[in-house]
Amino acid sequence: MINKKEIFAGIIVIGNEILSGRTKDANTSTLSTWLNSLGIKVQEVRTIPDIEKNIVNTVNELRKKYKYIFTTGGIGPTHDDITALSISKAFNLTYGPHKEAMAILEKYYKPREFNKGRQKMAWMPKKANLILNPTSGAPGFIVENVFCLPGVPSILKSMLGGITHKLVGGDPILSHTINLRTVESEIAKSLSNVQDKNKDVDIGSYPFFRAGRLGVAIVLRGSKQGKIDKCNSEIIKFVKEKNIEIVEKD
Amino acid sequence: MINKKEIFAGIIVIGNEILSGRTKDANTSTLSTWLNSLGIKVQEVRTIPDIEKNIVNTVNELRKKYKYIFTTGGIGPTHDDITALSISKAFNLTYGPHKEAMAILEKYYKPREFNKGRQKMAWMPKKANLILNPTSGAPGFIVENVFCLPGVPSILKSMLGGITHKLVGGDPILSHTINLRTVESEIAKSLSNVQDKNKDVDIGSYPFFRAGRLGVAIVLRGSKQGKIDKCNSEIIKFVKEKNIEIVEKD
Repeated sequence: MINKKEIFAGIIVIGNEILSGRTKDANTSTLSTWLNSLGIKVQEVRTIPDIEKNIVNTVNELRKKYKYIFTTGGIGPTHDDITALSISKAFNLTYGPHKEAMAILEKYYKPREFNKGRQKMAWMPKKANLILNPTSGAPGFIVENVFCLPGVPSILKSMLGGITHKLVGGDPILSHTINLRTVESEIAKSLSNVQDKNKDVDIGSYPFFRAGRLGVAIVLRGSKQGKIDKCNSEIIKFVKEKNIEIVEKD
Repeated sequence: MINKKEIFAGIIVIGNEILSGRTKDANTSTLSTWLNSLGIKVQEVRTIPDIEKNIVNTVNELRKKYKYIFTTGGIGPTHDDITALSISKAFNLTYGPHKEAMAILEKYYKPREFNKGRQKMAWMPKKANLILNPTSGAPGFIVENVFCLPGVPSILKSMLGGITHKLVGGDPILSHTINLRTVESEIAKSLSNVQDKNKDVDIGSYPFFRAGRLGVAIVLRGSKQGKIDKCNSEIIKFVKEKNIEIVEKD
């Protein structure tokens, strides 16, 4: 166990475009890195299609399992954007035009531009709290512990600053990476010994292959800098004994 | 519904490095694209940590839900590679050195190189069928409908050719993309009308923002070329009426 006071989150990626392979999900990495800095650990990610029943069931299962849930995607103006409707159903809340969201969009668009498609972006659970969108107007929303964000990575990123203060995290999760010019099997036993002696640090081993050369990134993660430092020293010790080169970047 | 004879698969991404945000998952896109070409649709992806209980439970839940399950990651030589052990437990099978896998690795490595770490890569459910690895020796394996692959994208890719003949798909999933210089709300209503009239085609709408310009990619997916063509004509019709520019690439 890394951390005595661990706070867990789940991410639900909603979108056929990810499941079809057309688009690579970039939001998990953004959300996880940001949540780690707040002391919140992402424990599970589910990628599901734009199907109401799947969204409702996944939200209802995960919101009981983790302190915070983040959904990405499906809050735009087109027919395949069904996240807001599905969240309303998951929570048994009325789905309709949200007064505050409507006011924001009315201000954002010129009157002749504010067509039905754009108005749809203000339809959501009526009692939701808004997540402001400094990039493109249309807000995300929060119902209880579920935070609904858009799928476009640059827009999602710009909205995180507005919700940081709403999250209560545990101890920040610290990490340290050591990149080695070796292969995993050369260090597996030594690394396992270090892990056995340092239960408070989570040691990951990730092979890489770049510019024609093999290497392994050792990632130490934990909540106490002192424990990570101790672990790091023990790894550096066996690395030197084995004459393995430490490289700057993986 | 896209397809009368739909075959579904699930993907389980095993790895703390994805959940921590350190590494972006690239394998989902590779697997989905390849499976689509075989007429198999990925219906769900779960990303879970390197924790035995989570792997066992997720595998046991999903293998009953979908025709094929693919796991990525956790089959290397280090202490955090626990996929093979967890799969053995999920299926109640003996975990130990796999004769055929051991023979492959013995041939791959020089005798003095074949250390405990490398031998561990031959430990798996004893009755598993192997997935050959043309890149780096260590095989993946199959138990019933669960296909276990490594996490390193280039190695995973090189192993897919060896299992294509083991999968029975439905009708291939065809797709066609139309890239428009517009915003979603301008076309939402017309697109929704086309979707309502063409239930056999799945129409997705994905905004993009590149080189300072906004656009929308409309993706048509289905199993019948004729139905996709009809849908495409109806979209081109309203696009021309609205004087929207069609662009080459999104």
